[in-house]
Amino acid sequence: MNAQRFTRLEQQMQSGGLDAIFISNPKNVLYLTGFHTTMPGEVQAFGDPEGFVLYSKGECHLLCDGRYISGAKKLKGVTPQLILSPTTPGVIAEKLRQILGSGKVAIGFERDALLYKDATALLELTPDYQWKPAEELLAGLRLCKTPEEIELIRKAQRITGQCFDHMRGYLRVGMTERQVAVEIDTYLRTNSEGNSFAPIVAFGETACNPHYSPSPIRKLEKNQLVLLDFGAIHEGYCGDMTRMMFMGKADGRYREVYDLVLQAQLRCLAGIKPGVTCHELDALCRDYFKEKNCAEAFMHGTGHGVGLAIHEDPRLKPTFKTKIASGMVFSVEPGLYYEGWGGIRIEDLVVATETGYDNLTTTTKELIELAV
Amino acid sequence: MNAQRFTRLEQQMQSGGLDAIFISNPKNVLYLTGFHTTMPGEVQAFGDPEGFVLYSKGECHLLCDGRYISGAKKLKGVTPQLILSPTTPGVIAEKLRQILGSGKVAIGFERDALLYKDATALLELTPDYQWKPAEELLAGLRLCKTPEEIELIRKAQRITGQCFDHMRGYLRVGMTERQVAVEIDTYLRTNSEGNSFAPIVAFGETACNPHYSPSPIRKLEKNQLVLLDFGAIHEGYCGDMTRMMFMGKADGRYREVYDLVLQAQLRCLAGIKPGVTCHELDALCRDYFKEKNCAEAFMHGTGHGVGLAIHEDPRLKPTFKTKIASGMVFSVEPGLYYEGWGGIRIEDLVVATETGYDNLTTTTKELIELAV
Repeated sequence: MNAQRFTRLEQQMQSGGLDAIFISNPKNVLYLTGFHTTMPGEVQAFGDPEGFVLYSKGECHLLCDGRYISGAKKLKGVTPQLILSPTTPGVIAEKLRQILGSGKVAIGFERDALLYKDATALLELTPDYQWKPAEELLAGLRLCKTPEEIELIRKAQRITGQCFDHMRGYLRVGMTERQVAVEIDTYLRTNSEGNSFAPIVAFGETACNPHYSPSPIRKLEKNQLVLLDFGAIHEGYCGDMTRMMFMGKADGRYREVYDLVLQAQLRCLAGIKPGVTCHELDALCRDYFKEKNCAEAFMHGTGHGVGLAIHEDPRLKPTFKTKIASGMVFSVEPGLYYEGWGGIRIEDLVVATETGYDNLTTTTKELIELAV
Repeated sequence: MNAQRFTRLEQQMQSGGLDAIFISNPKNVLYLTGFHTTMPGEVQAFGDPEGFVLYSKGECHLLCDGRYISGAKKLKGVTPQLILSPTTPGVIAEKLRQILGSGKVAIGFERDALLYKDATALLELTPDYQWKPAEELLAGLRLCKTPEEIELIRKAQRITGQCFDHMRGYLRVGMTERQVAVEIDTYLRTNSEGNSFAPIVAFGETACNPHYSPSPIRKLEKNQLVLLDFGAIHEGYCGDMTRMMFMGKADGRYREVYDLVLQAQLRCLAGIKPGVTCHELDALCRDYFKEKNCAEAFMHGTGHGVGLAIHEDPRLKPTFKTKIASGMVFSVEPGLYYEGWGGIRIEDLVVATETGYDNLTTTTKELIELAV
């Protein structure tokens, strides 16, 4: 698998005029080498690194300090390179010189996966190198998934759906948001590699925050809506799904808002085909809400790519003009949020195909009412 | 609480010659405003922000997009500022201009909490502003904990210890590393706000990786060592502890390595007093291991500060020359790691006092043998 990815990387480097590329985004390091990092976030500080890739002349160097070098040695197709600890920009620059030498080297780097402090120091220490932005080149490598990757995501999403089925039978009046989040968490950690992000569990009006941390004291009451947003991880690949439930008999307003969100989502899904742009798909939801006079209650993008990272390209938002192509995996998740009332979001994960899309999410979107 | 912190921030800004400060590290935002972010990592990308602080002229502005603004409005002493989504460097620059105006403004920023891409764009868009490094000023604010903060960390560490007691009774031959990690996770999410980092569970030789991800298939066997490293969170503050156990009767090598690590840790603890430097404390472990001819098996720093972040200043490592002062909270965690055999680490969390230290960790460090 690595070999194919290396070949595609080399092709991209050649057309970008790069002699070498320095890769710091942990997900890109994982994609190319299979090296798993444990720390959160998508930036590695030089002061506390896990693994950096330096790819040059057909060789994939993996730079690790002593804590990680034994893991690096087990990987195929990779040359482990011990870097000194404590690691500084000077240590990194010296290792680059050892491998690349001095003089004019066109070297790609990820401006969105290095700290300002680290990158400015590294660039100052290597004035003879020509540093060129390469974050889009790398995001592009991961943009269209192979059939094998799609099956891994499908599996992650299947486990996500099984977790939802479990939660549907688990919810009771009186449970706290945190208790429900812990149950999701335990299910996903037991049945998959873990959570692709901290589960969102919101009862009633707290659902008006699209990103919400479950409360340890807020208890589920009769006639409250329930928003659950979570995802499993399978072989490093993420699932992601949002579903709603109603504890008791859904009232008119809930039914109305639910239907608006569902119709918006279905319109967007129906629009997925090769050649349509991401911002056009976003507009399918946004324009529908405008037509229904509720556009101001939809304050986030329609979707995001999902793969090794829970948020990656493509992005379904007004500023992202990339054309949809077969193999792109992304969420479609319109929502409407009202302070003091709550919010509704419905989220599927889909893969674009040659003719339309394949929905990786099989969980029902019918309105769910729970018996009190 | 905010008011005192604002006062200290203003004093620091004044002595640093700053008219304003732009704060992007989520932990610093939380420290000053009480605004909790949900995404992992210590850097917020402009393209997907949660909340930035702009402090100027005695006013604490909290910049959020529509997803977070309702949370920001609930905070005391804070002026919520809606930023447009999708957020770009241009959107941030425009908001700064609205608040600060144009012309010569000395503005602090965190070079270690902004992406290279975002920071370079923002600085280019505001050539009239004088951007000055302020990450040390902000780290300094959080360096010495107040008595209230110390009690929150003590509580987090107490729950961490209770979790260990639970795990001591839970472990059985045949359990997988992941199963044990899930149990820790469930305990901490049920009894605290969650995990301060992904729990490390290693059986036998996998313990030779100081940062290790628990395996879903590796099972605990008789005569294996067990390394557990985890921490609770209480009101945002982190606990952190590493303890060892042996499944069965500990052999000679285990006893020998365990004792070396424990003696190193006790020497370091005994050296904690106001005025000693961090690198001198680090050297107490390092020099002891040198004396015992095992220094090459200790490949990380002796400790790190703990507070709202699991890793913060001060750092007990050779390059960190800061003097210990009363109120600093940090881990002391020497370890020895041997490929093919395993590793031993013993970690306490302590607070420096006027005369020495107070160990926030009450869990035993006697050698623990589990009945098979």
